[in-house]
Amino acid sequence: MSFTAQLTADAARIEAHLNSVLAGKPDQPVVQAMRYAVQGGKRLRGFLVLESARMLGLPEAQALPAAAAVECLHAYSLVHDDMPCMDNDDLRRGLPTVHVKWDEATAVLAGDALQTLAFELLCDPVAGPAEVRIGLVQALAQASGAEGMVLGQALDIAAETAGRPLTLDEITALQAGKTGALIRFSAEAGAILAQADRAPLRTYATALGLAFQIADDILDVTGDATTAGKRVGKDQAAGKATFVSLLGLDGARAKAADLVSQAAAALSPYGAAAAKLIAAAEFTIHRRN
Amino acid sequence: MSFTAQLTADAARIEAHLNSVLAGKPDQPVVQAMRYAVQGGKRLRGFLVLESARMLGLPEAQALPAAAAVECLHAYSLVHDDMPCMDNDDLRRGLPTVHVKWDEATAVLAGDALQTLAFELLCDPVAGPAEVRIGLVQALAQASGAEGMVLGQALDIAAETAGRPLTLDEITALQAGKTGALIRFSAEAGAILAQADRAPLRTYATALGLAFQIADDILDVTGDATTAGKRVGKDQAAGKATFVSLLGLDGARAKAADLVSQAAAALSPYGAAAAKLIAAAEFTIHRRN
Repeated sequence: MSFTAQLTADAARIEAHLNSVLAGKPDQPVVQAMRYAVQGGKRLRGFLVLESARMLGLPEAQALPAAAAVECLHAYSLVHDDMPCMDNDDLRRGLPTVHVKWDEATAVLAGDALQTLAFELLCDPVAGPAEVRIGLVQALAQASGAEGMVLGQALDIAAETAGRPLTLDEITALQAGKTGALIRFSAEAGAILAQADRAPLRTYATALGLAFQIADDILDVTGDATTAGKRVGKDQAAGKATFVSLLGLDGARAKAADLVSQAAAALSPYGAAAAKLIAAAEFTIHRRN
Repeated sequence: MSFTAQLTADAARIEAHLNSVLAGKPDQPVVQAMRYAVQGGKRLRGFLVLESARMLGLPEAQALPAAAAVECLHAYSLVHDDMPCMDNDDLRRGLPTVHVKWDEATAVLAGDALQTLAFELLCDPVAGPAEVRIGLVQALAQASGAEGMVLGQALDIAAETAGRPLTLDEITALQAGKTGALIRFSAEAGAILAQADRAPLRTYATALGLAFQIADDILDVTGDATTAGKRVGKDQAAGKATFVSLLGLDGARAKAADLVSQAAAALSPYGAAAAKLIAAAEFTIHRRN
């Protein structure tokens, strides 16, 4: 199966799992908003969980709860990040954001409950022995909390009122939290599930995460809202420092390509079994949304 | 040691644990807001975790991470609940709320990271074997998510726009989620930690949780803001149905006293070891904040 076919198949499998779990929750607006918020998207993080597990010889079913969990965590972060007091976005994946379609209170609560659901999903016994599941809980908490994703978001907001553009080091640190930490968790999840060495997947994911953010910055300049499914050009309009503003468009593209090579090299111990993860890294910098 | 002395000692122990954990996080405004949000309060939930564990013969140290976790979870819910789009409160525990002292974005992120921290704390190996820890994660997720606390908060918000006051059954269901679920988790945590039968503590906590909310409604009518540390009279001003508006002040007091008797009866199998949990139930309906 090609990478693209695999990504599509995995997205459908993750979506079915999430729909089935959410179908068991009370039929209330806050749950409807949760269902809405987890629809769509590329499911790249979920794919990384499933593919890193497959690369290490695990059955997909064992990795599915962690794949669904990371997508819930990601969806919660988007719902809160889109709110008026944060990024104030009204379009996400080509649809109105949760606080636009419902209201801000529902966006707060749906995001909160999606974070909770992520941790609940990791308790599923099919994910393996309790030792493995608590390892996933700990890794996801560290990736998404005040030393990971939330820290990155806070630095991003602070940057807007800093009165000066960020330096390359500062943007790299910000990104390592904001988008990098969850991507790192996703790729490492396979190693946690397999109780294997995490180092190669961590190196792969660290390079991939940075490439992903650089590609996002490139898309913000070169993309259009219809294809991207969200507002573009807003970083430039806001005068925010990005990898593109600091490195130039060509420099940013070269840096992203270099990172993809680093990501691929990190997985050389796994030989042909790493092919789809390497293809995922290539995809990351060539995607249009 | 008396119940009151124990509550004070436990609050100090929980606060010290939280301060020590948060001291290891990055010194950023979002972490400062987290530290601020977990200060103070009665720590009743944390006490319930520690005391239910003590009643079942466990060392306090084993229960401390779960006690700190439930206080983080509770603090996160207050930070988000106080936001302008939710309850819009500017005073909490006698101090400005997080979104007043910082801003709304910081309140969203600090609340988010406090929820994450709750789950991270439960991963602490001192809490017991992985099987026990994952049991705590699952129970906390179920208590706080879209079938528990968040559902209760969503029902509370929906009630404000329902155009009619809620019935007694509806208020009871709302409360079972909004405040009851986390109180139930707290008391059951001892049984989860001890791998013991959860039923007696669950019955105790269900009655306690309802008594707690009735007492809150009574305080909203009879209390003053200085003693309560938060705005009072707001339910009445908003024309919201409460246990007091539905049962009258005397009826609400009688109902609360009856629930405390039920809570005490549920713990009769534990004899004298249950004395402090029974005192906690008494305290709940006589407190002034």
